[in-house]
This record gives sequence, C-alpha cells and structure tokens, in this order.
Amino acid sequence: MQQYFLGVDLGGTKIYSALADGEGRLLAEIKIPTGAGDGPEAVLGRIAQTCRQLQERTGCRAAALGIGSPGPLDQESGVVYNSPNLGWHEVPLKKRLEHMLGLPVLVDNDANLAALGEYRFGAGRGFRNMVYVTVSTGIGGGLILEGRLYRGSGGGAGEVGHTVVDPEGPLCGCGRRGCLESLASGTAMAARAGELIEQGRGKSILAEAGGDPGAVTAVAVARAAAAGDPEAAGIIAGAGRYLGLGLANLVNLFNPDRLVLGGGALQSGPRFWEAMENELSARALRPALDQVSLARAGLEGRSGLLGAVALAMGSPRSGNSGSGDRR
Amino acid sequence: MQQYFLGVDLGGTKIYSALADGEGRLLAEIKIPTGAGDGPEAVLGRIAQTCRQLQERTGCRAAALGIGSPGPLDQESGVVYNSPNLGWHEVPLKKRLEHMLGLPVLVDNDANLAALGEYRFGAGRGFRNMVYVTVSTGIGGGLILEGRLYRGSGGGAGEVGHTVVDPEGPLCGCGRRGCLESLASGTAMAARAGELIEQGRGKSILAEAGGDPGAVTAVAVARAAAAGDPEAAGIIAGAGRYLGLGLANLVNLFNPDRLVLGGGALQSGPRFWEAMENELSARALRPALDQVSLARAGLEGRSGLLGAVALAMGSPRSGNSGSGDRR
Repeated sequence: MQQYFLGVDLGGTKIYSALADGEGRLLAEIKIPTGAGDGPEAVLGRIAQTCRQLQERTGCRAAALGIGSPGPLDQESGVVYNSPNLGWHEVPLKKRLEHMLGLPVLVDNDANLAALGEYRFGAGRGFRNMVYVTVSTGIGGGLILEGRLYRGSGGGAGEVGHTVVDPEGPLCGCGRRGCLESLASGTAMAARAGELIEQGRGKSILAEAGGDPGAVTAVAVARAAAAGDPEAAGIIAGAGRYLGLGLANLVNLFNPDRLVLGGGALQSGPRFWEAMENELSARALRPALDQVSLARAGLEGRSGLLGAVALAMGSPRSGNSGSGDRR
Repeated sequence: MQQYFLGVDLGGTKIYSALADGEGRLLAEIKIPTGAGDGPEAVLGRIAQTCRQLQERTGCRAAALGIGSPGPLDQESGVVYNSPNLGWHEVPLKKRLEHMLGLPVLVDNDANLAALGEYRFGAGRGFRNMVYVTVSTGIGGGLILEGRLYRGSGGGAGEVGHTVVDPEGPLCGCGRRGCLESLASGTAMAARAGELIEQGRGKSILAEAGGDPGAVTAVAVARAAAAGDPEAAGIIAGAGRYLGLGLANLVNLFNPDRLVLGGGALQSGPRFWEAMENELSARALRPALDQVSLARAGLEGRSGLLGAVALAMGSPRSGNSGSGDRR
C-alpha cells in the first residue's frame, strides 16, 4: 500500500511544506511566510493549516509529519529550547502539532535534516558515510554514519562551523575565536571585505554594495570578483582555503565515502571551489582522500524539506524503518 | 558455556598476548620482544607460538583471536599494507595466523582496539559515544559511536592527530603543517624544547637530558617543569592548550558522552591536564560540553590488548555479537 508523508522545513522567514509519497516524490508543496513576530501559537497554527491543505489538495492522508526547525532542540521530546531565528523559547513543537493534526510528528534540526534529505534522495544516495556541510551566512553540518543520521549524545553532533581551525583567528558569532565559520562562511567573506574598506581599500566591493559599507555582503564580494577585482578574488580564495582545511579535518576524522556541500556561499564563483579543493587535497591524509568523492548538494533548496519527509518515513506508525529513526 | 579468547597487541618492539574469558578477565599473559628485524614470517611464528603456549598453560581452547597491529591495514582482509614500525609490506596477517592456529582471526589497528578495550572493559564502560585519544610520541584516536567501533569507509577514521588546528603551525611528521600531533604530542614538546635550546635557552631542560641536545624528550621537559623551570612549564602548558583545543573540536563534532585520554604524555604533570581542561572548557560549545565527561584510560598498558580480546569476542564463531563486529 502506498503511504504518504508530510515534511516541513521551518525557517526564520518561511515555512516550506510538502506532501510526498514513499519514494520522496513531492505531490504538492506550499511556501508561506513564517511570520515569527506573531508568536509561536500563530506559527504552529500556520504549519497545521498548510498540512491540512496539502492533504486536502492531494486527497492523500499522511502517515506522519517530519519537521526541521532551527535549533537547539531536543529531538526526542520535540521541544525547541531557544531559537533566536524564531524568537522561540521552550516550544513543545512535537506535542502541539501531534495534538493539532492527530499524526505522529518527528522533529530534528535543519542541518541534520538537510543531510538526511541529501542522503536519501540527493547527492548522498548509495553512500555509507556521508558528511554534509552547508556554507551560507553560517556553516552547519550533518553526519550520516554507517547509513544512519548520527546525532551524538545530546543531539548536538556535527557542529562543523564551530571547529577551531586557527586559534588566533577572527572572533566568531559564537563568541570564540578562529571557528571555521569565522573564516569560511559568507559572513566571514563580508567581514574581510569590511576590514579592507575600513582601511580605505576594497573600492570595487564597496561599489557593488551601492557605496554603503553597511550593505557589504558575500554577494557583493562575489560580484566584484566576477568583474575582475583582485581584492575580492583574494577574499574568496582565502575563505575557500579555510573551508578546504575544515573539510580535510573531516576526512581525517570520519573517513567518509561522500562529502556533500550545500549553501549559498558556494555561489561565490569558481575560485572558491578551486581553493577549497586544493587545500583539501593538500591537507587530507591518504588513502582517506582517495576514498571520498565530493559533490554539490543535489536537491537545491529542498534538502531540508526532503529530509523532513525522510524523517517522517522513519516514524514507527509509517511501518518503515527510515534512516532518521535510530531509537 | 564459558568461552575463551586470545588477544594480541602487536607493536614495533613487543608482542603482548593474553588469553581471557568472556568477561575480559585475563587468565594468562605473555610479553616477548617482536624482533621485527627477523622479518614477518619469524614474527608470525612468534605470535602463533605464544598463542599455543597460552592455551596450553591455561588448558583453555580459545574460540577466536583478535590482534591489533600498527597500520595501515585492511580490517576485512586482515592485510597489513605498510607498517613502518614493523617494516612490513603487504603481510596477510589474518590468513597466515588462521592457517597456523586453526582459529578465526580478526585484525584491526592499535588505536581502534585501544578505544574498543576502554569501551568494553575500561573508562568507557556504560557510555554510548566515546572518543578515545592517546597522546604519546604521536596522537591517535578511536571512535565508539552508538556503542560500536566506527572505522569509516576505508578503516581510516579517527585520525585525531592529523586534524589541523593551526594552518601556520609547525611541520608535522606527516609532512603537513599545524596538525594537532605537531603541537600537543610528546614529540611536539621535545621539539619546542629543542627550539629553545638552539636559541641558547632551556638550560634546565638540557640539564635533565644530560646536556645532550639530541637526547631531549618530553620526559626531560616534564622533569624540568617538576623541578620548577618556567620554560619547561610553558612548553607543557602550551601543548596542553592545543590538546584542549583539539578535544573541543571533537566535542563539537561528535557530542560524545565520554572522552577517554591515554598515552604517556599525560604524565607531563598537572599543568598539562589543567591547561587542556581550561582550553576545552573555553572552546567547546554548550550544552555539548556539559554532556561529556573526561577520564583517563582505565586499563593502563592493556587497552589495546583487551580491545583485541573484545574484537575476538565479536567474531562469528564466538557466538557473541561484540562491539567490534560491524559486518
């Protein structure tokens, strides 16, 4: 019997929901603004509403709902502790939605589910040990080890962005110094550009930001580099090198057969990828380096959504044993 | 029915063998020189001989033999590819010993088995996600994830010593720069002392090495520090800080519930442990930091030996499903 699953990718700005069949084919999807400012109850109501709409629209009753939320959260109880992105504090996401929808609800953090989505339906399909790294404003990670999502003892594993790769490096958003995120993320590239501009340099980057130093982003850096600006190119290559170093550390620790990279910062141009690959090759041990293949995320903006679907597939009531279900 | 298992910890200088019961209690043990210079066949003969002696001496027939060898090796085929410590190249350790002893033989590398030994019988007992780090002349690691030894896709996981923590750091034995091993191992401490001595400093350390700059080791540094030498104390604290940073990265990636530290460099005095703990606390994320406890290896020189026993317990013929048996 064909079964159907609901997946929700809950973010600070949008709620992205879909209904899928057991092969992860999306039958319908809905994207609406989160409206986090209205408070948790309003957001929960919107999620429940889109889930009902998806079932009505397709005429398919879902067996379970998987939902990815910005963390930190407790995967077992489904409580979101404290999400700055949503302005949430101790929200019982799982319990409330189970009550509202009468369905088993499974919850995990967004990076874990993006990894799971790529593993089940994207660039990680068919591999055994996959490390997923997303590089955008921050750097996140998800680990599929021996075919299963590895969450660690408290659900906090995979904090790739907060591994320190330079003890004297720049200050990170987490308050520490030299985290990979402070050196290789989009935010890091923007920060390096800001430092140049403060010194009276970085004119092409500033021009791409409309002359407003406060508006300098990684996108402005990428545009300046694409237009031939050597300062911007240097920033991008530097960030790519640090990313490669971080990935080499992951290869040396996990000896994975697949490394999957996602996130907007990969759009920083060919120099970013090239610098990353060179540094990875120089820093990773053999034979581990030869045993891993590198790929871009295959599901574009849907990694997290399809990971949520995969999580739902692993729910006890679905009669399946999906990769998301460890317990 | 009580079952018995043979474990062998094969090293560059000694062969350490034991026969144990199903609870890991050692009934007899034998330690002999490896005599690696005599070639692989002679070493294999010595291993087989001690295994026979252990069975004769105890009157117990073993169900399987587990053996830890310096790597790199293929765990499945049991072939040691290329061990500089033993001077071996493509030695079919498993096949040869199975032929000689008529027993199932399981092979793994020494760091993995030390981790497995601590997990089953030592400081990791009762935990779920344990990271084992050994700090001596080099730095090695072993990973127990979800109660099982995690080897990675080619058996090369856990190379903690070759994660880069300072891209501009000193040259490492592996040819790269700034690996944890080049900054926090016994060899690293000796190298820092050597640098001081070259500059005409480090007199107390030099005295502890009998005035011979070529004889400066981590032990000489530890002795000078214990006698109150501030230069030696500084070297030890520096190495401890880097170790703490490396451990923080492991906490952020694995979110383990147990960190077990072994190896001779832990004997470098209280400053080493203190600096390590301070840096770990400063660099690891919460709540992962609060979810992990730190312990010294509990089996002293027997971690690898008991890990080999645990590996043997997981062999199909033993009728057990030990943690070492993933396949």
